[in-house]
Amino acid sequence: MLATILHGPGDVRYEDVAEPGILKPTDAIIKLSATCICGSDLWPYRGLETVNAPRPMGHEYCGVVVEVGSDVKTVRPGQFVVGSFATSDNACPHCRHGFQSSCEQREFMAGAQAPYARVPLADGTLVATAEMPADDLLPSLLAVSDVLGTGWYAADAARVRPGSTVAVVGDGAVGLMGVLAARQMGADRVIIMSRHKRRQELALEYGATDIVTERGDAGVARIKELTGAVGADAVLECVGTSESMHQAIDAARPGGSIGFVGVPHGVELGGQYLFFSQKNLLGGPAPVRRFLPQLIDLVLSRRINPGKVFDLELPIADVAEGYRAMDERRAIKTLLRV
Amino acid sequence: MLATILHGPGDVRYEDVAEPGILKPTDAIIKLSATCICGSDLWPYRGLETVNAPRPMGHEYCGVVVEVGSDVKTVRPGQFVVGSFATSDNACPHCRHGFQSSCEQREFMAGAQAPYARVPLADGTLVATAEMPADDLLPSLLAVSDVLGTGWYAADAARVRPGSTVAVVGDGAVGLMGVLAARQMGADRVIIMSRHKRRQELALEYGATDIVTERGDAGVARIKELTGAVGADAVLECVGTSESMHQAIDAARPGGSIGFVGVPHGVELGGQYLFFSQKNLLGGPAPVRRFLPQLIDLVLSRRINPGKVFDLELPIADVAEGYRAMDERRAIKTLLRV
Repeated sequence: MLATILHGPGDVRYEDVAEPGILKPTDAIIKLSATCICGSDLWPYRGLETVNAPRPMGHEYCGVVVEVGSDVKTVRPGQFVVGSFATSDNACPHCRHGFQSSCEQREFMAGAQAPYARVPLADGTLVATAEMPADDLLPSLLAVSDVLGTGWYAADAARVRPGSTVAVVGDGAVGLMGVLAARQMGADRVIIMSRHKRRQELALEYGATDIVTERGDAGVARIKELTGAVGADAVLECVGTSESMHQAIDAARPGGSIGFVGVPHGVELGGQYLFFSQKNLLGGPAPVRRFLPQLIDLVLSRRINPGKVFDLELPIADVAEGYRAMDERRAIKTLLRV
Repeated sequence: MLATILHGPGDVRYEDVAEPGILKPTDAIIKLSATCICGSDLWPYRGLETVNAPRPMGHEYCGVVVEVGSDVKTVRPGQFVVGSFATSDNACPHCRHGFQSSCEQREFMAGAQAPYARVPLADGTLVATAEMPADDLLPSLLAVSDVLGTGWYAADAARVRPGSTVAVVGDGAVGLMGVLAARQMGADRVIIMSRHKRRQELALEYGATDIVTERGDAGVARIKELTGAVGADAVLECVGTSESMHQAIDAARPGGSIGFVGVPHGVELGGQYLFFSQKNLLGGPAPVRRFLPQLIDLVLSRRINPGKVFDLELPIADVAEGYRAMDERRAIKTLLRV
């Protein structure tokens, strides 16, 4: 089959690869209904992460099971499933504590920007829907698999509660999903940092109440001003740079919480800085599996529409253009039709 | 009067200074019933913090109010009071959220290794007892002011719950108080890292269930072994070095929490390290004021005996020997009789 391979910075190709097959009795093979490009795919695409060998890309997926290994019990061929970008047995102590993305058997999905993908630990990773979902729900179900799950985790890790004042650092797809999540969790006020018109509009649509266009210290000062000099109760860090991380920490009130989900690049935090900031910090790869049943239900009942975050849709053969569009910020997030 | 002044590394003197007086209408002057030396006093004493000018030492205190400023309403001369090492108005938004040590008006106490001390923001900082406490309770009431309050905060920040498995990094006075706090909060298991016999014994007396003598990676491996390869639910970091901080983070399970109260010196944490560790982190100067009423009550009703942490008692004139004894680890904590 053809699949997406990154050969080096800026060099992504849709090319011939071996079709995935069952390698372990806990595997499943799915035929993807749709797939997409993640903000985190841009790190290696931009040369900010080393690519030593051709890398199969893609870790967000939903689709129909076509084959399962002999140990798989909870999903079967023909079922529509959504899974997490981090596979999990959903049984180890970390999984039972709700941190499936730190599962003892965790693997990170790869190769899902393709028509077929192998999903390890199928029983603990995939959630099947009762019936085949309507076509128009596919973008939203695909979003659940990572971008919504990650924004949701950012809000969860930042301890958003009914009535919270929330700040979101980053107007990428994850940040926008963070806005949606914070509102679903009952936040009163959701301030997003953005200077990009289309992203601002989508943020408002997802429930943002305030937009801050300033950055760095000026951005923090503006958030302080908007919160009566107090700072936000909860801050969602959805970028991963040193500037965004410090901005997020500085924007929270003492005792407030930062959920950080942007994969950090070049971030170092000083001990005394963290100490005297006196703020809760929790980040990491999102344990999407914990949220899957709830998020799938919110989508199927049409209470949320995370799929709107895809503002570019391309046939998967044009995947290279999808990367370019996101790299140049012409697109927020690219959906690939397979 | 005579008071304790640090002139430089290793050079602490009990010498003549001006007696404290009311500087602001929110001040109180107290006559100390007892005072003590803090582990954090050893940083400048050891030359690990620069001392540019003679520094009045001491920030832990309890005693009797002798004078109050014109705006002070809740305490009056003759009352026995306990206060926090961080002063607070107990009214600003941060105080109302329970983070009085980040109060908008915070000052850090100084000069309390002396017969008299000025306490700024008396109304928001001091808690008076209903009557004069028994003499034998003074060490424990003094402990409430910082060392117990800080150990308690470490356990609170690390989210110790009934049934938790807890690890304590550091067998200094704060670590030992952390053991006491974790048990009071219902921890099932409290593992302390210590290789010092007297401290181990006191830890066991305060409720530690396991002692780990290994350090660094070996210490982490031992904690993992003791917790069925999972890691601790809650870790109390009570030292402040790079090694202890990494040890604390590594000893927690994914999704677990680290409460760090050792003032960090030379600590830098990598963003990806924190991200992939996926653990809650909260530290800072303890908001002792939040805990004062509860902790005073636990002491007065003799349900806890934090005062046992003082294993050396000296007349305050011998304060220099008190510092030496703690520096050389001959004493866990020195109480100074005034």
